[in-house]
Amino acid sequence: MRLALLIPLLLLPLFGVLWFHPFGFAPEAWRLFLIFMGTIVLVVSQTLSILAASILALSLALLSGTMDPQAAYSGFDEGFILLIVVAFLISRAVVKSGLGKRIALQIIKRFGGSTLGLGYSMVAADLLIAPAFPSNTARSGVLYPILHALCHDSGSKVTDGSRKKMGAYLMMTSMSGLAISSALWLSAMAANPVGAAIAAQQGVQITFASWLLYALLPVGCSFALMPYLLHRIFPPQITQTPQAPLRAQEELRHMGPISRNERITLAVFVTMVALWALSEGLGIDKTAVAFGGLGVLMATRIFTLEDLRHEGEALGTFIWFAILYGISAELNRLGFIGEIGEGISALFSGLPWFWVYLLLVSAYVLIHYLFVSQTAHLLALFGVFLHVGLQAGVPGELLAMMLLFATNFSAVITPQGSSSNLLFAGSGYLEAGEIYRFGGIVTALYTGLFLTVGTAWIWVLM
Amino acid sequence: MRLALLIPLLLLPLFGVLWFHPFGFAPEAWRLFLIFMGTIVLVVSQTLSILAASILALSLALLSGTMDPQAAYSGFDEGFILLIVVAFLISRAVVKSGLGKRIALQIIKRFGGSTLGLGYSMVAADLLIAPAFPSNTARSGVLYPILHALCHDSGSKVTDGSRKKMGAYLMMTSMSGLAISSALWLSAMAANPVGAAIAAQQGVQITFASWLLYALLPVGCSFALMPYLLHRIFPPQITQTPQAPLRAQEELRHMGPISRNERITLAVFVTMVALWALSEGLGIDKTAVAFGGLGVLMATRIFTLEDLRHEGEALGTFIWFAILYGISAELNRLGFIGEIGEGISALFSGLPWFWVYLLLVSAYVLIHYLFVSQTAHLLALFGVFLHVGLQAGVPGELLAMMLLFATNFSAVITPQGSSSNLLFAGSGYLEAGEIYRFGGIVTALYTGLFLTVGTAWIWVLM
Repeated sequence: MRLALLIPLLLLPLFGVLWFHPFGFAPEAWRLFLIFMGTIVLVVSQTLSILAASILALSLALLSGTMDPQAAYSGFDEGFILLIVVAFLISRAVVKSGLGKRIALQIIKRFGGSTLGLGYSMVAADLLIAPAFPSNTARSGVLYPILHALCHDSGSKVTDGSRKKMGAYLMMTSMSGLAISSALWLSAMAANPVGAAIAAQQGVQITFASWLLYALLPVGCSFALMPYLLHRIFPPQITQTPQAPLRAQEELRHMGPISRNERITLAVFVTMVALWALSEGLGIDKTAVAFGGLGVLMATRIFTLEDLRHEGEALGTFIWFAILYGISAELNRLGFIGEIGEGISALFSGLPWFWVYLLLVSAYVLIHYLFVSQTAHLLALFGVFLHVGLQAGVPGELLAMMLLFATNFSAVITPQGSSSNLLFAGSGYLEAGEIYRFGGIVTALYTGLFLTVGTAWIWVLM
Repeated sequence: MRLALLIPLLLLPLFGVLWFHPFGFAPEAWRLFLIFMGTIVLVVSQTLSILAASILALSLALLSGTMDPQAAYSGFDEGFILLIVVAFLISRAVVKSGLGKRIALQIIKRFGGSTLGLGYSMVAADLLIAPAFPSNTARSGVLYPILHALCHDSGSKVTDGSRKKMGAYLMMTSMSGLAISSALWLSAMAANPVGAAIAAQQGVQITFASWLLYALLPVGCSFALMPYLLHRIFPPQITQTPQAPLRAQEELRHMGPISRNERITLAVFVTMVALWALSEGLGIDKTAVAFGGLGVLMATRIFTLEDLRHEGEALGTFIWFAILYGISAELNRLGFIGEIGEGISALFSGLPWFWVYLLLVSAYVLIHYLFVSQTAHLLALFGVFLHVGLQAGVPGELLAMMLLFATNFSAVITPQGSSSNLLFAGSGYLEAGEIYRFGGIVTALYTGLFLTVGTAWIWVLM
C-alpha cells in the first residue's frame, strides 16, 4: 500500500468520530472546519491533488447538508478570482508574444557581467516583470529557460559535474528571488488578492498601491542582501561572466525588432496596469479591465482558441480556488474562525501586542514547513492568525501585510514550499538538502529583515 | 481586407448611433441588448470566436457602466453552468476509459448486418449513450472514429471515389442522429439545461424526467423514419454489411474484458444518473453529484491533472456561457425581453394561439440557417420566442419543449449548424451541398413530426 494512503486511512476513523463531536461549536461550522482541514491533510500528505481534494470536499459539504449550494458556489463569481483566471490566460500571451523574454534579456544585457551581477539581474528582471504575472509559477516558467541557457552556455552543466561553477548559485538565487518578487506586488502571486480579500472581510483594506508602498523597503533590503549572502555562503566557482551580456545581446538580435505581437501585448499591458492603478478613482472594475485586455489579445489573434485548449490548468486552479475560498468565507460567516481565534488569543492574554505580533509572524513562517502550497497555507491560517492578532490589539494593517509578505517570503523554506520552486528544484543544479539548508537561511534573513526594517517602515507609513 | 471584418466595420457606426437612441426603452436595457446582439453578429459573421466576442461584450458592458459587476459575473456561480463544466470533464473520462466505445460496439455487434441496420444501430448507440454526454460535440467524437473505421473497412473510402458505397449515407445518418439524440435528454446537449433555466425564469418548470417523457414519442418516430428516408433519397451503393457485427466483435475482443477504469467509470455513471433522477425527491444538489463523480474519477486516477491540462476548451465554454447567460438574465430582469416580446406579439394579435405556436416554431427552425451554434441560437431567441408565445396564450410547457427540441433537431440544417456536425462534414464523405440538401429535408421531416405527433403527445401528457 502506498504510504500516502496510510495517513488518510488512519485519520478516517478520527474524522468520523470528530464529525459527531463538535466540542460545543455549532455542528455545521464544526463539520465544515473538519472538511476543510481534511482537505488540507489530503493535500499536504500528497494523497490527492488540491483539485481532487477540493472537489470531494465540496461534494461532501453539499451532500451532507453542511453547506447550501449558494454559499458553496459563491467563490465562482467573485471578481478577484475571475481576475486571476483571466490573468493566467493573459500571462500565456506574454510568454507567447516574447515580451517577457525580451524584458528579461534587456536587464541581463545591462547588468550581467559577473555571476553576482547576473544573480542580481535575474532577480531584478523578476521584480520588474512580476506585476504582470499574477502566477509566480508562470513567471518561473519565463525566467527559468533563460537562466538555464545562461548556465549551460557558461560551461556550468549538470551532466559533467560542473553544476556548482555558477548554475547552482544562480538557481538558488533566482528561486529565492521569486519569493520576494511575489511579495512586492499585489498582482505578483495568485493568492495575494485572495489574502487581500480575506483581510477585507476582517475590516483591513489593502490596495495595489498600499501593498507596493509597504513592500518597497523590506523587499528592497532583501533584494540588496540575498544574492550577496548566497554568494558568500553558497559561492559559485566562476564569479566573472563577461559572456552573459553578450549572450543576451545575441538573443535579442536573434529576436529581431519588437514584433507586432509584442507591441500589442505591451500596449495592452501598459493600458491594463494604468487602468488598474486608476481603477479606484475612476470607479471601474479591475476584472473588467482584465477581460478587456484578454478580449483584445484574442481579437488580435495573439491569444488563440488553440492556445486556450492547453490552459486546462487555469480551469483547475479556478475550481479549487473558488471552492476553498467559498468554504473559508462560509467558516468566517458562521463565526467559526472568530471562535477559534478567540481560543488561541486566550493563550496570549496579558502579552503586549508587539509580542503577539512577533509570535504570530514567526509561527506563521515556521509552519510553512508543513505546507506544499503557499495558497493552501494562506487559506488555512491567514484568516485565523489575523483575527487572533486583531483581538490582541495588533494594528490590522501591520499584521495583515506582514502575514501576506510571510506567505511569499517563506516560499523557499522547502523545495515543495511553492510551485514556483519546482523548475529550479527539478533542474538538477540543486540538491534537495541544499534547498532545505540555504532556503532556510534565506527565509531566516527575510524574516529578520521584514520583522525589523519592514515593521518600522510600515509603522511609519501607517 | 478580410470579408469578415467588413460586416462589423459597417455596423459599427450603426451601433454608435443606436447606442444613444434607445427608442423609448430604458437606456441601460437597450444598450445591453445592443451589446448582446452585437456579440451575436460578431459570432455569426465569424469575425470573432464566441469566447472573444463574449469577453469583449462583458468588458464593454462593465466599463460603460451598463451593467454592474455583481450581475455581470452572476452566471459563474450558477449551479447548472458549473454542472456543464464538470460534465465536460467527466465526458473525457468516459472517452479515455473506453466505456463509450464499448457500449457503441455492443450495439453494432447486434444490429449492424445491413447498411440500413448499421445506420439504425449508430443512431441507437448515440441515443443510448447521449444522457451521459452533455456535449454532443464530445459524443460525436466517440461515434465518429468507430463509424469512420467501419466505412473504411467496408471498402467505402474517400480517396478512391467509393465514398458513396456506404460512407456518405452513414455519415449523413449519424450526423442527423445527433440532432435527435440531443433532443431526447436534458443532459444530451450543453445548452439544453441553459434553455431549461431560461424557461424556469419565465415560470415553466422542466425536469430531467419531464423532458425525456415529452421527447420519447417524437424522437422515437424521427428515429424510426430518418435512417429509412435517407436510405431512399440518398441510397448507399452497398446495402448488406455482414462484416460490421464481426468487426465490432473483433474490436470488442481487442478491447478485452471490461477494464478497471471502465468498471469504475460505469459505477460512477450509474450512481450519478441514479442520484440525478432522485435528486428532486432527496433534495440533493445535482451539481454536487457531478462534482462528487469527478472527484471519484480523479481520486482513482481515471481523470488526471495531465488530462485536465488539455481541457482549456471547457474553461472557454464556461466563460462565454456564463457571460452570455449573465447578460441574458439581466435583460430579462430589466424587463427588456418582455417589452420586445410584447411588441412582436402585437403582430400576432387576434391570431388563435395555435397559429402563433406554429408560426413561432417554424420561424425558430428556419432562422437556424443564420446560426453557427445551437447555443447562440438558443441564447438569442429562445427567451424572446417563449415570452411572445406565452403572451399569445400558447401553453408554456408545450412551447418551451418544442422550441428546445427545435434547437436540437434543426442542427443539421447547415454544415455549420452545430459543432457536432463538424467531424462528419469534414470527413470527406459528404459534400457541403449534400448536407444543405439532405440536412434540409431531414430537418423538414423532424419539424413535421414534432409539430404533429410531438404536439399531440405533449398535449395529451400535459
